[in-house]
Amino acid sequence: MFPIVHHVFFWLKNPDSITDRDQLIEGIKTLKQIETVQELQVGIVADTERRTVIDHSWSVSELMFFNDLEGQALYQDHPLHLAFIQKCGHLWEKVLVYDIKNI
Amino acid sequence: MFPIVHHVFFWLKNPDSITDRDQLIEGIKTLKQIETVQELQVGIVADTERRTVIDHSWSVSELMFFNDLEGQALYQDHPLHLAFIQKCGHLWEKVLVYDIKNI
Repeated sequence: MFPIVHHVFFWLKNPDSITDRDQLIEGIKTLKQIETVQELQVGIVADTERRTVIDHSWSVSELMFFNDLEGQALYQDHPLHLAFIQKCGHLWEKVLVYDIKNI
Repeated sequence: MFPIVHHVFFWLKNPDSITDRDQLIEGIKTLKQIETVQELQVGIVADTERRTVIDHSWSVSELMFFNDLEGQALYQDHPLHLAFIQKCGHLWEKVLVYDIKNI
């Protein structure tokens, strides 16, 4: 288990476009090359039951694990991350981030 | 990497109560005994920079991994999960769930 979890959800501008979704997914996968990213999991909405507490409205999930906050901060400013935002930023309408410290 | 991710965020009724927080955390940890829960990570808000896209307003994160949707469904109805809700449900004001299918 890694100490720091960084979970990002993306809402696409064109949520019905598989092309846009796949382009975003490919972009996210390039972030694994950043040396402080210990593990990367990319996902889409799972087909679980519809309950009011479950948010099924997003399109792509980026789940990352870091060894420490410094590694997460380095990731934010890393050229590969900035290149990803430049290349894929037009694809999403909204992004929501949760940063977690495991205990 | 497990195929299904179930990520739950809890907002406490008394967000400043460490006692309530720790009781919830202990309750969540009992869920690891459910046989379909492959991995469980429990966390609190990480002290990352304040940006508008980051939600720092929750109190406890429950990150679970399953082998399949059936395992996740079994978890929902498991006696240990129901006992957890009965014992700890009064502690939270809001719960938000993301169910992810890794690709």
